[in-house]
Amino acid sequence: MKPNFRHEINGKKLATAIAQDYKTNEILMLAFIDEEAFNKTMETKKAHYYSTSRDAIWFKGEESGHIQSVKEILFDCDKDAVIFRIEQIGGACHTGHYSCFYQKLSEDGRELEDIGKQVFNPDEIYKE
Amino acid sequence: MKPNFRHEINGKKLATAIAQDYKTNEILMLAFIDEEAFNKTMETKKAHYYSTSRDAIWFKGEESGHIQSVKEILFDCDKDAVIFRIEQIGGACHTGHYSCFYQKLSEDGRELEDIGKQVFNPDEIYKE
Repeated sequence: MKPNFRHEINGKKLATAIAQDYKTNEILMLAFIDEEAFNKTMETKKAHYYSTSRDAIWFKGEESGHIQSVKEILFDCDKDAVIFRIEQIGGACHTGHYSCFYQKLSEDGRELEDIGKQVFNPDEIYKE
Repeated sequence: MKPNFRHEINGKKLATAIAQDYKTNEILMLAFIDEEAFNKTMETKKAHYYSTSRDAIWFKGEESGHIQSVKEILFDCDKDAVIFRIEQIGGACHTGHYSCFYQKLSEDGRELEDIGKQVFNPDEIYKE
């Protein structure tokens, strides 16, 4: 059973994947997947994505060690989006936040407030 | 403050929106938004999306009455994905399920099991 890679995103047919904390249901990040990324995720039970900017498979946490251990996978009704229900090691976001969705829009829509949990110092993790 | 509509999806520059139950954190659906959909969501506090198949703004629940009342909006680190934290009236999915993500992939990846909550009969809601 495969997702339906039906959306053409930045020139490539992809599906969408949401990483969600399997214990709290917190949403940690959103990214895209191609068939290879999906297959590698299934084989290793570690989340792999497709980077449209680098045009390459992306093993999440390969550099940082902040891997995502996949506990279960949900498909949506038309199978073009999946949820990776994961255990996140470290944090999901390159900014050091636990979740990439750490900014809350103000009621009037003018400002973003940082409401996230900082779990690591990105300067110590991502070195040149 | 606007999302960054930077991904070209099915020929149009869009951002991604996840609808999440604001009380339970359950993920209900994933869709795309353009600037007009985002603006209408902000103005009305009801979720609007952009349908790439119909190439049109889509007021969720307009036909079915199953609208999504937006309680807060979160932006991710690079602002190309947002979370609409919502109160869902009825169900989010056209199949009658509360969430579109009602199918769980089996461990061996061969089957999808329906683990969702059926909250309405689509035949009674979506008439020709």
